[in-house]
Amino acid sequence: MSVDTHQASDPLGDDELRTLDAHWRAANYLAVGQIYLMANPLLTEPLRPEHVKPRLLGHWGTSPGLNLVYTHLNRVIQARDLDALCVWGPGHGGPAVVAGSWLEGSYTETYPDITRDAAGMGRLFKQFSFPGGVPSHVAPETPGSIHEGGELGYSLSHAYGAALDHPDLVVACVVGDGEAETGPLATSWHSNKFLDPVHDGAVLPILHLNGYKIANPTVLARIPDDELDALLRGYGHDPLHVIGDDPAAVHQSMARAMDAALDRIAAIRRAAREDGVTERPRWPMIVLRTPKGWTGPAEVDGLPVENTWRAHQVPLPGVRDNPDHLRQLEAWLRSYRPEELFDEDGRPRADVLACVPAGVRRLGSTPYANGGLMLRELPMPPLERHAVTVDKPGATMHEPTRVLGDLLQDVMRATADRRDFRLVGPDETASNRLQAVYEASGKAWQAGTLDVDEDLDRHGRVMEILSEHTCQGWLEGYLLTGRHGLFSCYEAFVHIVDSMVNQHIKWLRVTRRLPWRAPIASLNYLLTSHVWRQDHNGFSHQDPGFVDHILNKSQEAVRVYLPPDANTLLSVADHCLRSRDYVNVIVAGKQPCFDWLSMEDARTHCARGAGIWDWAGTETGDREPDVVLACAGDVPTQEVMAAAQLLRRHLPELAVRVVNVVDIARLLPRAEHPHGMSDFEYDGLFTADKPVIFAYHGYPWLIHRLAYSRTGHHHLHVRGYKEIGTTTTPFDMVVRNDLDRYRLVMDVIDRVPGLAVRAAAVRQRMEDVRLRHHDWIREHGTDLPEVADWTWDG
Amino acid sequence: MSVDTHQASDPLGDDELRTLDAHWRAANYLAVGQIYLMANPLLTEPLRPEHVKPRLLGHWGTSPGLNLVYTHLNRVIQARDLDALCVWGPGHGGPAVVAGSWLEGSYTETYPDITRDAAGMGRLFKQFSFPGGVPSHVAPETPGSIHEGGELGYSLSHAYGAALDHPDLVVACVVGDGEAETGPLATSWHSNKFLDPVHDGAVLPILHLNGYKIANPTVLARIPDDELDALLRGYGHDPLHVIGDDPAAVHQSMARAMDAALDRIAAIRRAAREDGVTERPRWPMIVLRTPKGWTGPAEVDGLPVENTWRAHQVPLPGVRDNPDHLRQLEAWLRSYRPEELFDEDGRPRADVLACVPAGVRRLGSTPYANGGLMLRELPMPPLERHAVTVDKPGATMHEPTRVLGDLLQDVMRATADRRDFRLVGPDETASNRLQAVYEASGKAWQAGTLDVDEDLDRHGRVMEILSEHTCQGWLEGYLLTGRHGLFSCYEAFVHIVDSMVNQHIKWLRVTRRLPWRAPIASLNYLLTSHVWRQDHNGFSHQDPGFVDHILNKSQEAVRVYLPPDANTLLSVADHCLRSRDYVNVIVAGKQPCFDWLSMEDARTHCARGAGIWDWAGTETGDREPDVVLACAGDVPTQEVMAAAQLLRRHLPELAVRVVNVVDIARLLPRAEHPHGMSDFEYDGLFTADKPVIFAYHGYPWLIHRLAYSRTGHHHLHVRGYKEIGTTTTPFDMVVRNDLDRYRLVMDVIDRVPGLAVRAAAVRQRMEDVRLRHHDWIREHGTDLPEVADWTWDG
Repeated sequence: MSVDTHQASDPLGDDELRTLDAHWRAANYLAVGQIYLMANPLLTEPLRPEHVKPRLLGHWGTSPGLNLVYTHLNRVIQARDLDALCVWGPGHGGPAVVAGSWLEGSYTETYPDITRDAAGMGRLFKQFSFPGGVPSHVAPETPGSIHEGGELGYSLSHAYGAALDHPDLVVACVVGDGEAETGPLATSWHSNKFLDPVHDGAVLPILHLNGYKIANPTVLARIPDDELDALLRGYGHDPLHVIGDDPAAVHQSMARAMDAALDRIAAIRRAAREDGVTERPRWPMIVLRTPKGWTGPAEVDGLPVENTWRAHQVPLPGVRDNPDHLRQLEAWLRSYRPEELFDEDGRPRADVLACVPAGVRRLGSTPYANGGLMLRELPMPPLERHAVTVDKPGATMHEPTRVLGDLLQDVMRATADRRDFRLVGPDETASNRLQAVYEASGKAWQAGTLDVDEDLDRHGRVMEILSEHTCQGWLEGYLLTGRHGLFSCYEAFVHIVDSMVNQHIKWLRVTRRLPWRAPIASLNYLLTSHVWRQDHNGFSHQDPGFVDHILNKSQEAVRVYLPPDANTLLSVADHCLRSRDYVNVIVAGKQPCFDWLSMEDARTHCARGAGIWDWAGTETGDREPDVVLACAGDVPTQEVMAAAQLLRRHLPELAVRVVNVVDIARLLPRAEHPHGMSDFEYDGLFTADKPVIFAYHGYPWLIHRLAYSRTGHHHLHVRGYKEIGTTTTPFDMVVRNDLDRYRLVMDVIDRVPGLAVRAAAVRQRMEDVRLRHHDWIREHGTDLPEVADWTWDG
Repeated sequence: MSVDTHQASDPLGDDELRTLDAHWRAANYLAVGQIYLMANPLLTEPLRPEHVKPRLLGHWGTSPGLNLVYTHLNRVIQARDLDALCVWGPGHGGPAVVAGSWLEGSYTETYPDITRDAAGMGRLFKQFSFPGGVPSHVAPETPGSIHEGGELGYSLSHAYGAALDHPDLVVACVVGDGEAETGPLATSWHSNKFLDPVHDGAVLPILHLNGYKIANPTVLARIPDDELDALLRGYGHDPLHVIGDDPAAVHQSMARAMDAALDRIAAIRRAAREDGVTERPRWPMIVLRTPKGWTGPAEVDGLPVENTWRAHQVPLPGVRDNPDHLRQLEAWLRSYRPEELFDEDGRPRADVLACVPAGVRRLGSTPYANGGLMLRELPMPPLERHAVTVDKPGATMHEPTRVLGDLLQDVMRATADRRDFRLVGPDETASNRLQAVYEASGKAWQAGTLDVDEDLDRHGRVMEILSEHTCQGWLEGYLLTGRHGLFSCYEAFVHIVDSMVNQHIKWLRVTRRLPWRAPIASLNYLLTSHVWRQDHNGFSHQDPGFVDHILNKSQEAVRVYLPPDANTLLSVADHCLRSRDYVNVIVAGKQPCFDWLSMEDARTHCARGAGIWDWAGTETGDREPDVVLACAGDVPTQEVMAAAQLLRRHLPELAVRVVNVVDIARLLPRAEHPHGMSDFEYDGLFTADKPVIFAYHGYPWLIHRLAYSRTGHHHLHVRGYKEIGTTTTPFDMVVRNDLDRYRLVMDVIDRVPGLAVRAAAVRQRMEDVRLRHHDWIREHGTDLPEVADWTWDG
């Protein structure tokens, strides 16, 4: 099964073999130097303990393999004038990728202080994993990278995201055999069923079987060859196997595999683009099986290290104190023959650089890895085209996400030729009522089709796979390489990507501080099918906690919006799609919802982020209200409006203010978030001493955590989802969680001092309706007619 | 490639075929009835609109396939007297599993009100997806289930978890082809490399290719047969293919495949247990390709429904208003010939029940699915055996998790024969310093081995795979079937399972209210390699937010502990391992840490959950302190102790109280959490009006969110991780996040009123050290000597 590429005639002549090997040895030397040295970078004098860093941090094990890939990618880029990008899944091998970009000059162009000479090499070594220096992983700081390899699992979906709609690009993707055990990676192999050989680039996965994780063998390295080969063919690939530990033989084998893979990719492209072939191609991939810690110490202290898990991090741990280790390190470094690789000034010699491509073809200089450079403004339609007409508040209803779908259809249509906008989601675009987009672009699909299928499209830009991880990975890769997009997701299940979005926000936090990184389009989430309207799917589908998760992260990069109706959703979506370098979370409903604001009012309200709806309350101009009814989210807004109406009817003398919050970070102090309100603004909206009954979409304590430092916090009473979920009706959900209109009225009565005696009777009346509700739904399975038929009469 | 099992001689005689089909038809009838009917369950009169529920909720599409599996599992359980459990991955098909358990009598035994007659059938129908009734999914309420199928992806890892250490059990696991696209499911196929055919049961995956998700075809149903077959062989399975839409032929084929699979499983067991075969077996599995919505309406309103995604939920949506739909529904129901299936009292006839096994062999009555019934107390060693000796606080150091490792070794040893304890983790057991357990049990591993491997063990009970999802799924399945375990994980990466733990907590919340569900062992997390000691791996590895995530969930089921040293960790771990029905999160360090408390003091302190360390402060008995230094977490505790020491030296007249919090939920009001403190207790610890400087392990606002309602909240000032992460030294991490001892002293000086003028000079001195720190680490890459060499002199 395994193709032993050693058998055929050798593709590399002696000269090319020598220069490729020189590049590889130079990169290996630089990787070891980064892990160990803080002085004497060229070994111009015998190695002494004080040349070695006091804390040894880094991952040697994967580095020689990554270096081999870098060297051979250089070769084919140069030979074929290839537009290539590499995603380095084993991102712990930071020293390797830094070495490659320093050798080719990209590093120095990005960081002029790290010159390509002995002094620069010294700084390159010292800065690595050193306080104030650079991280030990491939990171945002690394030129040529779109992927931090700290948390494993996302390399391949990032690579596919980068390849989409970049027809000339080849994205090599090194997948570590440790990473290959993760779920997100395991399913992302199926991305090839979504890659269009006409409009998309190619992904060349390189499965790096170096056999070990931190402390264990890897699964894929320990199954028989035929089983591994079957697995990869089952994933839809045609694998090329490169196996060995003799550098010259592996160079030949790797060159042969690279050539075969790129020839095959070229043939696939030609077939699809020129010959009109529509059958899904079996894309090539490479299995690279080389020793972990290859060319490093074979044994340390009598134990085998090379080709074992002991090579994972720092093979010689005791260099400063143990003379044997020091001697071994020096011998190891000298085994690369640095004097052949660098001139006396520390500059790489011509042989080393023979394979290096030029200019933006260099892996460390490709604009594909600094996507903001390639980003164009998204052509947004005028919102008025899709706005719903609101002559008076609460008189009509629309499904907000369906209205948004019309807008997205426009965006999709306007980018039909540019192909720089994608919509992703786990099988839920239609369920989330965005299906209008299909009229502008179908769903990407390269697998088999049947007559009964609808909206599948070989060239579609809507992407649906039942894997939130893959959706997220695709979109991240797409954005990081200079395009736009939106992820629509059931609210509860977006927690599946909690950890992925953490890493993306970390990425943004760092890149915002790197002047050479151009801003990229924001990652936009539309969370719908939300907690209050998962009454039919029940408890497992009810979870509003993603907002809490997001608001824990770097405030400069996160934004959360809860538009209460269709026009506010349009305004928020427009803002988010135009923004840069954020993660925007929009929580909006798909069910029919009252239209509260005209487009013009919606724009104003969303620009403010929070405001008084004076038409909804009963306060008069000349005094503070008796109570504030605040709301954030579509269902809480409806309940607050109904409560305001009940109060107007039953306690007309009460001065009620209604405040709606769209941009939830407005509640934070200004020092804590760029959108935060000053205390002056906050008190102006919520008062400093009046009771505030706040109906919130999610966990109520989030509002307390945002507002705890406000003067009036003691008077703030929040209702929200308190984890009481089940299969029931929408209104029963709000009743069970004490967010319903009747409870809100009771809350007001309980908290406003000095109410008329009549208030007690009103309170009892509210309680009575709640009891009637309980009986009614158990009998009828539907909501009380007065709830189902409720309308706003303001 | 695909084995067409129709070709060989038929395994079922006419009688058996007839009775199996009767069972299947009865289950289909009951599934449709649950989705649609609220009266007239036996169709004793013509169907009228008022017999139909006003809201139609449920998933028909997957139900006939699940029913087929239930029927055929019944057959083989009965024929082979098999101990079997089934995990229903397409859990949306709740009506199917409920139908199966009602037919066999388990449902009525669990819920006596739902009798096995016409009246009971009426209630069974009405309750489904009805307010106050049962969820539309396979759920905790469903007898025989250990798996809620709402969030997809975890069926197979649950099945493996259930099979571990249950040598006589066969766990059938229906994997939906939608679910198969998720990452967690995609990698969980590799669980077979960890299943010991000697001590573990078997897992029989049944990949149900019914072709569609909500709105799309599935990937695995649309790749060629040979590619699918290769994929499954690559996963290490030997697939048996059952394909068809003719019920009789499919019954024969399914019976043949079930027999072949179970014969193969028996042969594998014999080979491993009697013949000593150690080669990893290729376990059988079944690919079941039948139409989605099979036997349902072929067309509705002129559009194809059966065998399309339109059959996913409710194929006839307009039954109450549309007479055509009503007629179609009645014809559909009558197509199962209910009069042949149920007698006039609504009791299932003998033919229907012929295949049903008896007693606890029934899928709805197996104790394996109500694991608490099988649970035994875990044999815990006396803690004194592993306690570290603490003659005086802060005089010695230990690595807390290493000390815990010794205790876990004991537990592992004490369960060597019982085999009811497992330790899981993503390749990090040794990295987390728990490797002492290997002396009692190695790491489960059935894939290839090499001489260089260490601690791999065909029969091991430590489980390591680089997939947090799989670790979590295995452990959940293990606990739900009556055993004990612990999951050790890098703190940052436990977010990967945020969504899985959500679902487990939901499960516990519901089962705690079901009297027939016996309590199960808690799910215990040890989060280590935590945010403050990921200085070497950097920002991507730094995230303390899991605690925030957990504390959003049902308070009755979640507990969070931050033991400050080795003995407190032992006490907390002991408590957690003995507990039931919780998710316990323990955050503890692996790096050397001062020992503060003796074992006896640790027990007392942990029992209280929070307490004054009077030996650490300077308050005298007769008055309130001037300031409270509070801490939670090992690193914050060390910084607080160092700050207390600085204050004692520089401002000896200041009365400082040190409070340590182990059980973070103690900060909540009693009404919010069972461990919450009364205001009286809280004020007793923290005072009502003195400044409290709180050094917390994670995001500082969590403490505010827990304590916002306390009298003294206005005086609470919290320091913690504020998302300023990088690759640096441990102490630089705390400095960057303003959690360091010098900053804490400055905070005290800034907040205590009326300090001597001298305090300003002390404050300046603290500031100076911080500046010196910044210069020093950039030069040396290490921490200031006075920090590195700091000791407690109390």
